[in-house]
Amino acid sequence: MKQSIRVVTVGVEDLGRSRAFYSDGLGWDPLVDLDEIVFYQAGFGLLLALWPLRDLIDDVGSSIERGSSFSLGHNVDSPQEVDEVIERARRAGATILKEPQDAPLFGGYQAYFADPDGHLWDIVYNPGLSVADDGTVIFASSDGG
Amino acid sequence: MKQSIRVVTVGVEDLGRSRAFYSDGLGWDPLVDLDEIVFYQAGFGLLLALWPLRDLIDDVGSSIERGSSFSLGHNVDSPQEVDEVIERARRAGATILKEPQDAPLFGGYQAYFADPDGHLWDIVYNPGLSVADDGTVIFASSDGG
Repeated sequence: MKQSIRVVTVGVEDLGRSRAFYSDGLGWDPLVDLDEIVFYQAGFGLLLALWPLRDLIDDVGSSIERGSSFSLGHNVDSPQEVDEVIERARRAGATILKEPQDAPLFGGYQAYFADPDGHLWDIVYNPGLSVADDGTVIFASSDGG
Repeated sequence: MKQSIRVVTVGVEDLGRSRAFYSDGLGWDPLVDLDEIVFYQAGFGLLLALWPLRDLIDDVGSSIERGSSFSLGHNVDSPQEVDEVIERARRAGATILKEPQDAPLFGGYQAYFADPDGHLWDIVYNPGLSVADDGTVIFASSDGG
């Protein structure tokens, strides 16, 4: 199996509410915006999809455990950008779960917000993480973060 | 806010079990493999992180609703590859939630499995979806999928 994620699909209770949050609130530009699903380009060859949770469950054809035991990491280039993203998310109606602060775990600066469905976004300035020309992610140290 | 996801972090109950599933079972090659977290390269500039859920919750500093109201889409180049990935996942101990089958929704072929924590993977052959040289995802039609 190749190591590849093409689409991150988050199940939403109310697609209109989620579309408004991401498109209007955060200012994301939809790649495909339909009545039943919205796709955003979220990286090289990567999509974020907003899909009603009931449709995801129907498609799987099986019950799933509802909740958000995951987070989506959005990396920025400075602590100030963390603050800016969080202020924008706050105005968009996000719940700020962790206000911007130093992150001793990896020597950076970080905050968390939850989208309207409680899905977590980790807004991170990590000076030890970079991306090579070929897309490989590089850690300055081996301590992860 | 830029439209970018750098890390998809899935909260896991037992990091050893999840490492074994992804590294040994699915054959993913870790980029960083530590006692407390494992990172896999999962696309251009994209990481999949396995992190104990208790550590994610500690880091957020707030309770979260546990569960898996999301799916990770893994796209392959043929229906046969969907079958192969699902057989590998099955041998690795995944729960196959939807056996490989035609997907009328987007005119392809698809299956779902759940990892040891119930996190969903959507294994997809979608002939209408491709990636341009600049990383833009292209839909042959406007019906999403």
